[in-house]
Amino acid sequence: MKIIGIIAEYNPFHNGHLYQIEKVKEIYPESIIIVAMSGNFLQRGEPAIVDKWVRAKQALLNGVDVVVEIPIAGCVQPADRFAENGVRILNNMGCEELFFGAEHAEYDFMTYAQLVQNLDSTEFSKKNISYAEAFQEAVAAKIGHNIDSPNDVLGLAYAKANLKFGKKLKLNPISRNVAGYHDKSLSPDSNIASATAIRKVLFSKDHNLVDKYLPSYQDLKDEKYISWDDFWPFLRYKLISSDIDELANIYGMAEGIQYRMKKKALELKVEATFDEWLKAVKSKRFTYTRLTRLSVATLVGMKVNDVSLYNKFPYVHLLGFTKNGQKALNIMKKNSEIPLLAKISQQDKDDFYHVDYRAGKIYQSQNYKEQDLKRAPLIF
Amino acid sequence: MKIIGIIAEYNPFHNGHLYQIEKVKEIYPESIIIVAMSGNFLQRGEPAIVDKWVRAKQALLNGVDVVVEIPIAGCVQPADRFAENGVRILNNMGCEELFFGAEHAEYDFMTYAQLVQNLDSTEFSKKNISYAEAFQEAVAAKIGHNIDSPNDVLGLAYAKANLKFGKKLKLNPISRNVAGYHDKSLSPDSNIASATAIRKVLFSKDHNLVDKYLPSYQDLKDEKYISWDDFWPFLRYKLISSDIDELANIYGMAEGIQYRMKKKALELKVEATFDEWLKAVKSKRFTYTRLTRLSVATLVGMKVNDVSLYNKFPYVHLLGFTKNGQKALNIMKKNSEIPLLAKISQQDKDDFYHVDYRAGKIYQSQNYKEQDLKRAPLIF
Repeated sequence: MKIIGIIAEYNPFHNGHLYQIEKVKEIYPESIIIVAMSGNFLQRGEPAIVDKWVRAKQALLNGVDVVVEIPIAGCVQPADRFAENGVRILNNMGCEELFFGAEHAEYDFMTYAQLVQNLDSTEFSKKNISYAEAFQEAVAAKIGHNIDSPNDVLGLAYAKANLKFGKKLKLNPISRNVAGYHDKSLSPDSNIASATAIRKVLFSKDHNLVDKYLPSYQDLKDEKYISWDDFWPFLRYKLISSDIDELANIYGMAEGIQYRMKKKALELKVEATFDEWLKAVKSKRFTYTRLTRLSVATLVGMKVNDVSLYNKFPYVHLLGFTKNGQKALNIMKKNSEIPLLAKISQQDKDDFYHVDYRAGKIYQSQNYKEQDLKRAPLIF
Repeated sequence: MKIIGIIAEYNPFHNGHLYQIEKVKEIYPESIIIVAMSGNFLQRGEPAIVDKWVRAKQALLNGVDVVVEIPIAGCVQPADRFAENGVRILNNMGCEELFFGAEHAEYDFMTYAQLVQNLDSTEFSKKNISYAEAFQEAVAAKIGHNIDSPNDVLGLAYAKANLKFGKKLKLNPISRNVAGYHDKSLSPDSNIASATAIRKVLFSKDHNLVDKYLPSYQDLKDEKYISWDDFWPFLRYKLISSDIDELANIYGMAEGIQYRMKKKALELKVEATFDEWLKAVKSKRFTYTRLTRLSVATLVGMKVNDVSLYNKFPYVHLLGFTKNGQKALNIMKKNSEIPLLAKISQQDKDDFYHVDYRAGKIYQSQNYKEQDLKRAPLIF
C-alpha cells in the first residue's frame, strides 16, 4: 500500500485533476491518495469559487482518499512557502510520493532544486523588478534554461521543500499538456480545460457544456460562485476605516505599500471594481499575485505574528476521508508531529485557529454556510 | 442684529424645525440664525437618513443663515458632551442666544443646571443600572422632579454646558408639544410630525402624504435613504476581522463590551439584522444608544486618542450660508478661537480631519456622493 500525496486547490475540481488521480491509480492500484488542499482563500490570493467542503467532497467522490486543509497562514503564500507548508503536511501524514502536474514532466526537479538551493533570496529584492522576476533570472542562470510555466515553477518549489525536509518524498511529475494553467477558453476538442477557463464559464451564467469538463458538475451547479467582487466592498471598507499603522501590521506589508492601497481605495469611485483598484495599486515592485495575497491578508486581518505562530506550531484540518483513507489516518495518528484537527472546538477558534476561523466567517458572509464550528469531516 | 444659535440634527428637516425658526424670526426679525448640525452620523449613534449637505441645504432654504458641522468626535457622544461641543461652537461663532425645543419650555433650565452642576458623574457607573438611569435619579433628587423627556434632557445639557462656558448664551426653550420626539406615526390633524415618524414613512416607500410634514420634500424624494441596515454588513465584518485588542482601542469601549459585540457578530446567522445584533448585545449596563454610539465609533474606527485630540484642538466645518449669514461669518472670523474650515484640504484629511473624512468615505460608499474633498460650502 503506497501513500501518495498531492498538493492542490481544486478551484474547482475538474477532469484534469481527475486525470492526475487516475494516473496515480494506474501506477499504484493499491494506493491511498492524500490531498493537502487550500481552504477558502487560495495560494494566489483569490477566494475559492466554492467553499472548501464542496471542493473536498468533489475530490473524495473522484478517487481521493483523504483531504486536509492547509491553514490560511500556510496557504496564502508565495509558491516556495506554500510548497513547504504542503510538503511538511504530507510528510507528516506519512506520504511516500508526491504527484503533481507539470508543463515539463521530463524535468529532473530534484536535481534542479539542488542547483538552486543556495540562491540568496534577499538579493532579489534589491533590483527595480519584482521578486518573482529576479528569482526567475537567477534560476535560469543556475539551471541553464527558464523555469517559467506555472506548474513547473510549483514543481520546483515542491522539490526545494522536499530537499529541505530530507527528501522524504519521491517526486512524480505528471504531464498536463492538455490545458494551459491560465487558458481562458474551453477547448471543444478535449474534455480537459483549465480551472481558469472553467471559472470564467461558471461566472458567466452560461453553463452550457461546462459539465463536459467537470466530473461533479451536479454538486457545483447550485452553489453561489464566490469571487473578489464579493469581498471587494469589505476590503475597501477595511482600507478606508483602518489607520495606516494598523495596516502596517498586516502580514506581507512592505515598502509602505499600505499607503498606496489605502490611497487608491479612498480615491477611486465607489463603483470601482477590485480589478480597477488592483490596477491602480500595481507598481513594478509588486506583482499582481503579491497584491492579491496582501489583499487576502488585509481582508482577514492576518498579522505577521499569526504567520510566525503557524510556522512554529503548524496544524492541519481534516476535511474528509474515505474508508480507504481511514487506514492512512490510523497510521498517521501514531507518527505525525502536526496535530490533525477533526473538529474545530470553541477553544481552538479563539486560540491558534483564530485566523482560519475568521477567514471562514468572512467567507460565510457570502456563501451563508458555516465553515468550521460544528462541521465534522466528510466521510465517503 | 441678534445672532441666534441652534443645535440640531435635521434628520430630516421638517415642519417642527421650521416652526422653531419662525419663532426666532417672530421674536427677532433681524436675526442671523446659525445652526451647529451633526454630520453624517448622529448624536444617538445612527447614520443620518440623508447626508449633511442635503440636510444643510434644506435648513438654508428654510430660514437658517449658517450651517456648520459638529465633527464626529464631538457629535456621536452622550447628551452632555454633544451639548458642550455644540455650545462651544456657537459661542465661538458669536451667538448671543440659544433656541431649542423642549417638552417643558417653562422649565428654568439655567437654574436646574446650577442645581445639578456638582453631581459626580463617576458615581453613576457603580450601580447595576445604566449610567443614564442613575443620572436621571440623581437629577430628580436635586431638582425635585424628573427631567426625562428627550428634549428637556438635551435642554438641561445645553444649560450645563452654557454654565460651564460662562453663561455666554441666553437660553430660549420653545415649546414643541405638537409631536413627541419618538412618536412613531404621523398625525393627520397636524402638519408637524416627529423625525422618527417621518423617517419611518420615508423608509416604508409609501410616501403618500409625507410631504405635508416636510417643507422641502422635493429635495428629499430622490435621495437614497440611509440607515444602519446599510452599514451593518460592514460593522459585522469589522467585528469579525478585528482582534479584540484592536477593538479595545475604540472610543467608548468599556467593561469588555468588545468581547460581547464580537461574539454576537460571530454567532448570529448571516441573515441577522443590525437590530437583532443590538438586542443580542444589550445588557443592563449598556443602553441602546450607548451601543449604537459604540457601533458608529467601531464602524469608522474612532479611537480614544481621536476624541482627546478633538477636545484639545476643536474645529468646525462650514457647510453653507446665506448672504445674511455671510455677515455673521465676517464677525466670527475675527473672534473665533476655533478654526472654521470652508474647504477640506488634502492635508486636513490626513491630519486632524481624518476621522471625519473616513466617516464621510464610509457614508459615501452607500450614497455615492463625495462628502468632503472638493465640496465647497453651499451659498444661498
